[in-house]
Amino acid sequence: MVTLYGDKISGNCLKTKYVADHLGIKYNWVDVSVLKGESRTEAFLMVNPWGQVPALKAEDGGTLTQSNAIMLYLAEGSPLIPKTNWDRAKMNEWLFWEQYSHETSIAVTRFHVMFQDCNIADRDQALVSKGEAALDRMEEHLQENSWFVGDWFTLADIALYAYTQFAPDAGFSLDERPAIKRWLLQTAQTLGL
Amino acid sequence: MVTLYGDKISGNCLKTKYVADHLGIKYNWVDVSVLKGESRTEAFLMVNPWGQVPALKAEDGGTLTQSNAIMLYLAEGSPLIPKTNWDRAKMNEWLFWEQYSHETSIAVTRFHVMFQDCNIADRDQALVSKGEAALDRMEEHLQENSWFVGDWFTLADIALYAYTQFAPDAGFSLDERPAIKRWLLQTAQTLGL
Repeated sequence: MVTLYGDKISGNCLKTKYVADHLGIKYNWVDVSVLKGESRTEAFLMVNPWGQVPALKAEDGGTLTQSNAIMLYLAEGSPLIPKTNWDRAKMNEWLFWEQYSHETSIAVTRFHVMFQDCNIADRDQALVSKGEAALDRMEEHLQENSWFVGDWFTLADIALYAYTQFAPDAGFSLDERPAIKRWLLQTAQTLGL
Repeated sequence: MVTLYGDKISGNCLKTKYVADHLGIKYNWVDVSVLKGESRTEAFLMVNPWGQVPALKAEDGGTLTQSNAIMLYLAEGSPLIPKTNWDRAKMNEWLFWEQYSHETSIAVTRFHVMFQDCNIADRDQALVSKGEAALDRMEEHLQENSWFVGDWFTLADIALYAYTQFAPDAGFSLDERPAIKRWLLQTAQTLGL
């Protein structure tokens, strides 16, 4: 059985749990609180020398990091990964975009606001603009499509759900983004949340 | 035949060219100069509404963006993608890490220095620290391993080669990093550069 190390306040960590739960994959879950410094203890650095969660430990002891790489590993051969190579490519496109343009703006801003006592008015405006643009891009896509890739629920939806669900905590309004709100609800229902 | 839109000063764009050339995939190459604003023209926005290169246009007209997603698409079924699921997972781990931790520090700093007249002494020190840490991690890995995944040349090597080759231009020294220098040479030879 694999072991997942994660902090449930982290969208990146939740991604791995969502995939495993959705696919009925059995796993041990080990809570690692980043805020309490538990990702920097000697014991955890034995699991992941880079001191980051999420991390997956395979039965044979190998460690895998990077939330989207862990999701891809857990979901191999499942319906969460499209069957055609073009649709897989479009899913990968969203996964890389999520890590480059969405997580780096929305998740980082949320961290400042929720865990570093930053007031909404004092947020880093470059990150706010980047986050608003990311949400606009999602809204535009979801105005025309039910899900991010084809007509199916894929890893792209799970990756983007992880921090979009917390966007309002970071001061990003979804009020004028009805398609994102519809898709968030639909994703939560699909994941049984 | 696919069309690749790219700017040869960009490591992200070069990745897609390296993969296609290495695998003998025929393609049309369209130069799009970011510095001359060619990624924001009406004509290019018809190809990629997000105004970014690299972009791949498939024969049927679909557009794919994100350098690592394009590489994965071009290389499907080739020896550049490992056969076992664990090795594929480790390759994906490096691909996501490259975009999150390496490109965002080394490529961004190179852009400031090479194309925005930033002096080495005036570089953003947070980005410099992040870039140095990324190179340290690579050096540590390459001290023990010939390539990034298993004993094979994979997309992880191509992705990391793209901007590591330019690290000295951005003021990151490779003098004390012999394993990276050995691997750069070995990668260039493998790609026939």
